[in-house]
Amino acid sequence: MTMHDRHDSNRDWSPGHALQRLVFFSDAVFAIAITLLIIEVHPPRLPWGSPDHDYWAALAALFPNAVAFFVSFFVIGAFWGGHHRAFDCARHWSPRVVMPNLFLLMAIAAMPFFTAFIANNPGMRVPGALYCFWLLLTGLLNVRLQRVVTAPPVVAEDIPAEHIAMLRRRGIAVMLGAATALIVAIVVPWLAQVALISIGFWRRGLDRWAQRKAKSAAA
Amino acid sequence: MTMHDRHDSNRDWSPGHALQRLVFFSDAVFAIAITLLIIEVHPPRLPWGSPDHDYWAALAALFPNAVAFFVSFFVIGAFWGGHHRAFDCARHWSPRVVMPNLFLLMAIAAMPFFTAFIANNPGMRVPGALYCFWLLLTGLLNVRLQRVVTAPPVVAEDIPAEHIAMLRRRGIAVMLGAATALIVAIVVPWLAQVALISIGFWRRGLDRWAQRKAKSAAA
Amino acid sequence: MTMHDRHDSNRDWSPGHALQRLVFFSDAVFAIAITLLIIEVHPPRLPWGSPDHDYWAALAALFPNAVAFFVSFFVIGAFWGGHHRAFDCARHWSPRVVMPNLFLLMAIAAMPFFTAFIANNPGMRVPGALYCFWLLLTGLLNVRLQRVVTAPPVVAEDIPAEHIAMLRRRGIAVMLGAATALIVAIVVPWLAQVALISIGFWRRGLDRWAQRKAKSAAA
Amino acid sequence: MTMHDRHDSNRDWSPGHALQRLVFFSDAVFAIAITLLIIEVHPPRLPWGSPDHDYWAALAALFPNAVAFFVSFFVIGAFWGGHHRAFDCARHWSPRVVMPNLFLLMAIAAMPFFTAFIANNPGMRVPGALYCFWLLLTGLLNVRLQRVVTAPPVVAEDIPAEHIAMLRRRGIAVMLGAATALIVAIVVPWLAQVALISIGFWRRGLDRWAQRKAKSAAA
Repeated sequence: MTMHDRHDSNRDWSPGHALQRLVFFSDAVFAIAITLLIIEVHPPRLPWGSPDHDYWAALAALFPNAVAFFVSFFVIGAFWGGHHRAFDCARHWSPRVVMPNLFLLMAIAAMPFFTAFIANNPGMRVPGALYCFWLLLTGLLNVRLQRVVTAPPVVAEDIPAEHIAMLRRRGIAVMLGAATALIVAIVVPWLAQVALISIGFWRRGLDRWAQRKAKSAAA
Repeated sequence: MTMHDRHDSNRDWSPGHALQRLVFFSDAVFAIAITLLIIEVHPPRLPWGSPDHDYWAALAALFPNAVAFFVSFFVIGAFWGGHHRAFDCARHWSPRVVMPNLFLLMAIAAMPFFTAFIANNPGMRVPGALYCFWLLLTGLLNVRLQRVVTAPPVVAEDIPAEHIAMLRRRGIAVMLGAATALIVAIVVPWLAQVALISIGFWRRGLDRWAQRKAKSAAA
Repeated sequence: MTMHDRHDSNRDWSPGHALQRLVFFSDAVFAIAITLLIIEVHPPRLPWGSPDHDYWAALAALFPNAVAFFVSFFVIGAFWGGHHRAFDCARHWSPRVVMPNLFLLMAIAAMPFFTAFIANNPGMRVPGALYCFWLLLTGLLNVRLQRVVTAPPVVAEDIPAEHIAMLRRRGIAVMLGAATALIVAIVVPWLAQVALISIGFWRRGLDRWAQRKAKSAAA
Repeated sequence: MTMHDRHDSNRDWSPGHALQRLVFFSDAVFAIAITLLIIEVHPPRLPWGSPDHDYWAALAALFPNAVAFFVSFFVIGAFWGGHHRAFDCARHWSPRVVMPNLFLLMAIAAMPFFTAFIANNPGMRVPGALYCFWLLLTGLLNVRLQRVVTAPPVVAEDIPAEHIAMLRRRGIAVMLGAATALIVAIVVPWLAQVALISIGFWRRGLDRWAQRKAKSAAA
C-alpha cells in the first residue's frame, strides 16, 4: 500500500466540522487576546546593582497594570466561558452565526487596548468610563450572539428551555454590571474596575426574580 | 490495567487528520493575525491628572488607527470565512494544498503591517494604494487556493457544482473590489478603505450575471 | 442535494466537546505564552558595517535573556506537560474545572513578564526571588487544578490510583523545587534559575518515599 | 433531562487524544512564531503630507526586513510541513515524544529573534551566519524528533518503509542545506539566505542516490 492509497482509503476527512471550526477559531482569538494583555505590562530595567528597595518601587508603580491585567484576564475568561456555554447548546451549522461571532471577537480582540489605556492612566475618568463602555458593548454583542446560537436552526433539540433562559440571564447580568460600572466610573473614576463585581449581584438578582416568576406561574 | 496498556488499547490516535490539521493551523494563523492588529494601536499615556478633554483629544488622534483596525479585522474575518467555506467542500487530503495555503497565510500574516502603515499615515497615497494592492494579492492567492480545494482530488464528491461556482464568484468579487479600491486610492487617497465596500456590489453583480446566464442556458 | 440539506443531514456537530474545548483553549494560551517569551528579547541593530566583534559583544549582552528564555520555555513546557497528563485522566465535564483552569492559565500568561524582569536585571535579588515566587504560585494553582481533574466527577473510571498518586507527587515536586529556588534566590540571587533543577531531586525523592511506603504497606 | 444528565450521558469526552493534543499545541506554536515575524517589521510613520517619493524610500529601507520575513515564513512553514508529514505516520502515544518535540518548538519559537537580527543588520557576517547556524540546529532537532515519531512504539504499523526513508532524507537535506548556507554566510554574508535554496538541490541529490541504491540492491 502506498501513502497515496492510504490517504484515499482511510484518511478521508469526515466533514461536519463547520461549527467546530468556528468554535476553535474563536477559542484562538480569545486565547491570544487574553495572553496579549501581559505584553502591555512593560518589565522594568533598573541600573545594575540598584538596591532592593528600587525594584519594589518599580514594581509598585506597575500596580495599576497588574490590577488591569488581572481584571481583564477574568473578564475575557468570563466571556470565553459564556461562549463555551452557549456553543455547548449548538448542534446545527448556520452561516448566520458567522457575523455576530466576528463582532464579538472584534470586541474581545480590542480589550488589550482598553486595558492598557486604563492601566496607563489610573483613576482617570475617560479611560475608566471607556473601559466600562467597551465592556457594555462586548456584553451587548455577546447577548446578540447568544440569541442566534440558542435558537433554531442552530440550537440542539434536547437543550432544556430553562437552561437557555439561565444563559440569557447571565448575558444580561454582564451588561447590567457593565452599565453600573460605567456610571460609577463617571462619578468615582478609581472605582471603575471595582464596580464590575456588581455583575455577580445582578446575576443573583435576576436568578431570584426568575425563580419567583416560575413559582408564581406554577401556583 | 496500567496507563501503558490503556494507551496501547484505547488511546490509539485515529489517523486521517491531515486536512483537519492544515485547517486548524490556518485557523491559528488567521486568529493571531486578526488579534495582533490591536498591538499596533498604542494606548496613550497622559500626564496624571490631565483634564478629560486631553484624553478625548488623544483618542481622536487614534481615529485612523481605529478605522484601520476595524476594516482589517473584517477583511481578515472575511478571508477566514472564505477559507472556512472552501475547506467545508474538501474531503480528501492532497499535498498539493500545502503551498497555496501557505502563500495565502503569508499574505494574511503580513496584514498587520499594511494596516499599521495606512493607520500611521492617514489619507496618504502610497500607504493607501499599497494596502489595496496587498488585498488584491491576497484575493489572488485566495482564488488560487480555492481552485485547488474545490477541485479533484481534494473536493468532496457530493458538493453541488453551483455551490462551487458561487464560492468562486465570491473570491473573484473580492479581487475586483480590491482592484477598484486600488484605483480609488491612487486618485482619492482618503477613500482607499471606504472603496472596499465595492466588494459587495461586485458580488451582487456577479451573482446576477450568473443567474442570467443560467436562465439563458435553461431556455 | 443543496448545501443546506447537506449541513442539516450529515454535518450536525456532535456535542460532547466541552472538555476538549477547554483543553484546546488552554493549549492555545500555553502556546502563546511560550512563544511570546521571545518578543522580550530585543534583536540588536548595530551601525552598518560594524566589525564582527561588536556583533558578538551585542549578543553576549543578551546572554541573560537567552538563559531566561530557555528556562521559561521549559518551565511553561513542563506545566503544559503536566496539564496534558492531568487532562489525559479526565473524562467527564464539570463546570468546576473552569475557574481553577483559568487561574493556572493566568499564572502562565504572566510568565513572559517575570521572565523579562529577571532577564533585564540579571543577578538581582528582587527579580530573581519574584520569578521563583511566581513559579511557586503557579505550582500551587497547578496542584489545585490537578486535584479537581483527577477526582470525581471529572476523572475517568479506569485510571489506576497509583497513576494519579504519581501525577500529584510530580505537582508537589514542582512546588518544593520552586520554594527551594526562592530561598536560594534570596541568599544567592545569581543561582535563582539554576536552583530550579532541584525539582528533579524532589521528584526522585518523593518517588522513592512513595515506593518505600508502598513496600511497608505490602509487608 | 437536565444539563447535568446530558453531560453525564452523551457528553463524555472520549479519551485517546494524547497525540492529537500534542500536535495541536505544536501547531499553535508554529502558527504564533510564523505570525509574530511581522511584528519585527516596524511600519514607517512619516510627517503628514510627505511626498510619495518619501514613502517609497521608507519602504525600500524595509527591503531586508521583507526578505527576512518572507524567507523565515517559508522556513517555518517548511518545518511545519515536515512536522505534519512526520506525525501523519504516528499512531501510538508515547511520553518519549514530548521532550524532542519541545526542543524543536523552542528552536522554532526563537526564529523571530534571528530573523529580526539578520533583517536589522543586512549583509553582515555574524547575523547571517547565526541565522544559518540556528537553522542547522533546528534541522538537527527536527531529525531527532522525526526518528522518534517514525519508529516504534509511536509509528503506525501500515506506513511503508520507503515513505519513512523519504521523510528522513528530506530532514537530512534541510540540515545539509543549512550547513551549506552557513559556510556561504561566513564567506559572502549577503548570500546567507539565498544559499538556503541549496536545500532543494540536496533533496534531489539524496533522492537520486536512494534510487540508485535501490536499483543496485534489486539487481
